[in-house]
Amino acid sequence: MSKLNIGIVGAGRIGKVHAETIAYRLPEAQAAAIADVNQEEARKVAARLGIGRVAASAQEILADASIDAVLICSSTDTHASLIVEAAQAGKHIFCEKPVDHSLARIDTALEAVKKAGVQLQIGFNRRFDANFARVRAAVASGEIGQPHLMHIISRDPAPPPPAYVKVSGGMFLDMTIHDFDMARFLIGDEVESVYAAAGVMVDPEIGAAGDVDTAVITLRFRNGVIGTIDNSRKAVYGYDQRVEVLGSKGSIATGNCYPNQAVVSTGSEVRRDLPLNFFMERYTESFANELRAFVEAIRSGQPTPVTGMDGRVPVVMALAARKSYDEGRVVQMAEISA
Amino acid sequence: MSKLNIGIVGAGRIGKVHAETIAYRLPEAQAAAIADVNQEEARKVAARLGIGRVAASAQEILADASIDAVLICSSTDTHASLIVEAAQAGKHIFCEKPVDHSLARIDTALEAVKKAGVQLQIGFNRRFDANFARVRAAVASGEIGQPHLMHIISRDPAPPPPAYVKVSGGMFLDMTIHDFDMARFLIGDEVESVYAAAGVMVDPEIGAAGDVDTAVITLRFRNGVIGTIDNSRKAVYGYDQRVEVLGSKGSIATGNCYPNQAVVSTGSEVRRDLPLNFFMERYTESFANELRAFVEAIRSGQPTPVTGMDGRVPVVMALAARKSYDEGRVVQMAEISA
Amino acid sequence: MSKLNIGIVGAGRIGKVHAETIAYRLPEAQAAAIADVNQEEARKVAARLGIGRVAASAQEILADASIDAVLICSSTDTHASLIVEAAQAGKHIFCEKPVDHSLARIDTALEAVKKAGVQLQIGFNRRFDANFARVRAAVASGEIGQPHLMHIISRDPAPPPPAYVKVSGGMFLDMTIHDFDMARFLIGDEVESVYAAAGVMVDPEIGAAGDVDTAVITLRFRNGVIGTIDNSRKAVYGYDQRVEVLGSKGSIATGNCYPNQAVVSTGSEVRRDLPLNFFMERYTESFANELRAFVEAIRSGQPTPVTGMDGRVPVVMALAARKSYDEGRVVQMAEISA
Amino acid sequence: MSKLNIGIVGAGRIGKVHAETIAYRLPEAQAAAIADVNQEEARKVAARLGIGRVAASAQEILADASIDAVLICSSTDTHASLIVEAAQAGKHIFCEKPVDHSLARIDTALEAVKKAGVQLQIGFNRRFDANFARVRAAVASGEIGQPHLMHIISRDPAPPPPAYVKVSGGMFLDMTIHDFDMARFLIGDEVESVYAAAGVMVDPEIGAAGDVDTAVITLRFRNGVIGTIDNSRKAVYGYDQRVEVLGSKGSIATGNCYPNQAVVSTGSEVRRDLPLNFFMERYTESFANELRAFVEAIRSGQPTPVTGMDGRVPVVMALAARKSYDEGRVVQMAEISA
Repeated sequence: MSKLNIGIVGAGRIGKVHAETIAYRLPEAQAAAIADVNQEEARKVAARLGIGRVAASAQEILADASIDAVLICSSTDTHASLIVEAAQAGKHIFCEKPVDHSLARIDTALEAVKKAGVQLQIGFNRRFDANFARVRAAVASGEIGQPHLMHIISRDPAPPPPAYVKVSGGMFLDMTIHDFDMARFLIGDEVESVYAAAGVMVDPEIGAAGDVDTAVITLRFRNGVIGTIDNSRKAVYGYDQRVEVLGSKGSIATGNCYPNQAVVSTGSEVRRDLPLNFFMERYTESFANELRAFVEAIRSGQPTPVTGMDGRVPVVMALAARKSYDEGRVVQMAEISA
Repeated sequence: MSKLNIGIVGAGRIGKVHAETIAYRLPEAQAAAIADVNQEEARKVAARLGIGRVAASAQEILADASIDAVLICSSTDTHASLIVEAAQAGKHIFCEKPVDHSLARIDTALEAVKKAGVQLQIGFNRRFDANFARVRAAVASGEIGQPHLMHIISRDPAPPPPAYVKVSGGMFLDMTIHDFDMARFLIGDEVESVYAAAGVMVDPEIGAAGDVDTAVITLRFRNGVIGTIDNSRKAVYGYDQRVEVLGSKGSIATGNCYPNQAVVSTGSEVRRDLPLNFFMERYTESFANELRAFVEAIRSGQPTPVTGMDGRVPVVMALAARKSYDEGRVVQMAEISA
Repeated sequence: MSKLNIGIVGAGRIGKVHAETIAYRLPEAQAAAIADVNQEEARKVAARLGIGRVAASAQEILADASIDAVLICSSTDTHASLIVEAAQAGKHIFCEKPVDHSLARIDTALEAVKKAGVQLQIGFNRRFDANFARVRAAVASGEIGQPHLMHIISRDPAPPPPAYVKVSGGMFLDMTIHDFDMARFLIGDEVESVYAAAGVMVDPEIGAAGDVDTAVITLRFRNGVIGTIDNSRKAVYGYDQRVEVLGSKGSIATGNCYPNQAVVSTGSEVRRDLPLNFFMERYTESFANELRAFVEAIRSGQPTPVTGMDGRVPVVMALAARKSYDEGRVVQMAEISA
Repeated sequence: MSKLNIGIVGAGRIGKVHAETIAYRLPEAQAAAIADVNQEEARKVAARLGIGRVAASAQEILADASIDAVLICSSTDTHASLIVEAAQAGKHIFCEKPVDHSLARIDTALEAVKKAGVQLQIGFNRRFDANFARVRAAVASGEIGQPHLMHIISRDPAPPPPAYVKVSGGMFLDMTIHDFDMARFLIGDEVESVYAAAGVMVDPEIGAAGDVDTAVITLRFRNGVIGTIDNSRKAVYGYDQRVEVLGSKGSIATGNCYPNQAVVSTGSEVRRDLPLNFFMERYTESFANELRAFVEAIRSGQPTPVTGMDGRVPVVMALAARKSYDEGRVVQMAEISA
């Protein structure tokens, strides 16, 4: 089969990551076109990575019959409508998270995908990280028996700028969304209720913008598993990304990733360098892996490993968490509807 | 000053631990008498450790004017009344946890202590463990800045027998009580609200006895800190006792304790031996340390490091956790009264 | 500046690694031609990676005026003469280790390079590994003070086939050569004497071929540092690659690299998966880094970071180690001459 | 059987450790008498630990018919003659290491012990450390298969004062002696040849006193195993005591012991507190364990676990190491004779 012809919508940080993966690490695909509201940026990326065409708009890409699939890497508010348009154009779709902040718009988008019969994969890249994949494997294979308890630690090295916070949809939709997906992925079951204890501890400006920056969210799964998500917008030592599952036959826990394994012992301490600082370093491989999986799914006609429904449920969880925080009580997932 | 003269009430497991500490590791004190409802057991301990007198009852010990202090190591249902009697007899008191399952009886006991002007220390030995003491020091000294999040993992290697479960007061009062104390100790502040997600995952007989065996309890402190306690009655790999605190300037986390530091690498894995299996091995030093602190406090006339109020508050937290579990909602500490 | 035009001689395992690096990870260079005695293999690699030309011989590549630099990835016995030919053709040269087993031939090759004024880099990729680079940085920056002691653990997961052993030049020239380079790199000084204690413990066939499979080599540096290299042809748990340096102000030590950070605790042990099994997995990044450094050196006209002399000295050390083993005594480096 | 009646010769640092073990941790024995050239020091220890009698001399203790065994904790130059006298007095003997610096005097002492039919144990306490005992068990049980390579890291936190260095017999006899014992203990076989690379890197005054402060000693065992001992008189980060054995079926390695398991992550590093600083903290349990083993051996009539010959061989190894260093060559153990 010939290479999968891909169009990229969005030449920002994550768009570039995917474009580089296609250029350097994914022989089965090629980037045929790229578009960005900032045309200059799109031109630079195209020149550097040998992408043949800089399109004037996403629509121009969708109109190109030679394009097999599109990567939607533009801002969140454009995701849902682009999914609809891409589906109608018969393109397979890879869309960054979150799909949208509105369940209604998500449902419209998923409906369009279903009707068009195209494939959709959501960019929950962490599933493709070797650490979390190993934990999922231990749960799925029964290596640790029946799961009982699960913990996710997910802390950023520094908060985003207040301007971003305002349009982000809030920490639960912007940051915790990855952890909500991780929880479902690790346990392989759905959550029934959510309790979010949260606050503003890192930056008062975040509070002024109506958001929180620190939280512990308790999840109750249908199968009885109890899970927690620990979020902070600021861990001064860097990006902290760990999970742990206790099961009837054992536990599995993952530590952070470091730039090297060196340990220095001096007259005052035994120390090592800080962990990889943020997602571009920490999740490099997972970004390549998720795109490889997408390309393989499309080329083989198999379902993608992270479906549209996998994109919808974490949004419900985020809305439930926010409601829990607002009302100071446990919220049932069933309370949240489009 | 001469040695502190101590009477021991209870020659069971923990009574023996304290008697051995006095005999072998605490030159500033001596065990002058021991009593147990099982007189034969008391006689054996006395013979082995050179305790001069086997008393027929706790009351006989309390009537002995040469006794400076008593250790109450008998069953929980006897603690409160023994505290009252000991206080009235003018003895300083070291009492095992929990003080009692009833707040009313605890308050009566604390009132008697206050009135008598004697000193009381509660047996929350974990505060005297080098790991947790190091974490507390990091929080108290500002080494990690202002605390934001706290996690306690506290899992037993195996559940107690169902017969014990029935009289234990339930997991929250029997097992989590240590973790409630640890939470207050680490953060140095009081809890405002409690949410307990819990279930029966380990042993249906525990459920049949009306108790739970697995839980995650979310604590909200007055100073805003959010904490969790993870409890399981059965971690197949042994005793799991870890804490972690994230603060504005860093985090501190403690791992488990192992019988040795050896790592074996074979053709199938890199492994180490299981952690120290249970509290007698894991907390050996802390038991000696807490008794040393008690003896020093009495001898120096200073307040004991774990007061009667430190014994009362965790019972309130346990009652709040149970209420939260029963009613499926967040419970304010203020809802619980004697 | 335009892309560096590279010709690759040798389409075996390491030739492929370099070809992939150029194709996918090194935008500043392109592979213009590839040659291999196995033409079919060269064709396959060229087709897969888009290399324009499959040359009939190394000589055909050297005759191509558009080629700026060649990578010599053919068998060791061809290295020296190819270096001479490439130098005479005015090509910059990247040559895999070891340069040759004969000091006389190495000297001829280095002479030709010098005369032609081209650049030469030897493929000691481990210098470009993040772990060892961190250790070197700690020594070079004075972070651990003046170095006193150095240890290298370097164990392969399984011995090579006996047929390979016979043409390999022996373990010291074939395997330890990397460690000899590492020792010089870490300490930044030259070795004065060598003592090799060695034996056949892994496979009698290796002994029958006149080689050893297990060794500890003690190095005495001119600056007084004492170092050891621990070699085994077979560590059943996989590839074991660690170093440690003790200095006057501290020590630095590196552990192995693992496919993930997960720790599994079961009823019988606390374990993790085996380390990355062999050099293709363990040193992936270092292979890309060394080639990037080569390309940058050529493009900028700066000296390469691993010179021809860096290729020669480890061969002297290997010959000294063999002599030490044969004669059961400490051998001075000065005893070894071309 | 009644308690073993023990006389202690020497109330210095190690004499006190043993006296405390007997007083607090060894119910099967009692210290009946203590002697020291510094009578005041002996009196203080006796008063603190309830030792009934302060003897005027070692001879007074040996003359006491009620004494079953003596602990020789006086200075090294008195060990051999005290062993002879104690043996002639029919006392069982526990003697600190090294037995003596002279093989002739050691042989005289061992002869006296043999003739008297008493038991002798040498104070190689590290055999009784949980870490090294675990490594020995892995080798002895075949858990790691046939041993091939062995490494001992043994570094002190700071050098002794020059005055001590002068009478210490030199680093090999004073410090490495423990490691020579450890090597034999771990492998369970005898060494054939020794090569010591050593120097003065820590303190020129040590060199001025004719001694070395840094060394790597290569050991060749009769069974083919190759071992190294890494010694430094000064590791600024504290006491560094690690061993590692590679075998045909795997490896086992032990790390250092720390005062706590806490890991602190800050904006500049991930760190932990320094390891336990010196032998009194690091080997606390092993001191108690070795004495317990001695008492049990005497009471049960079984051979002691560390015999007189176990005291002699490391002295031969130390003399061989010094000869190797002096002559810059590999020395056969057979070259060293009394």
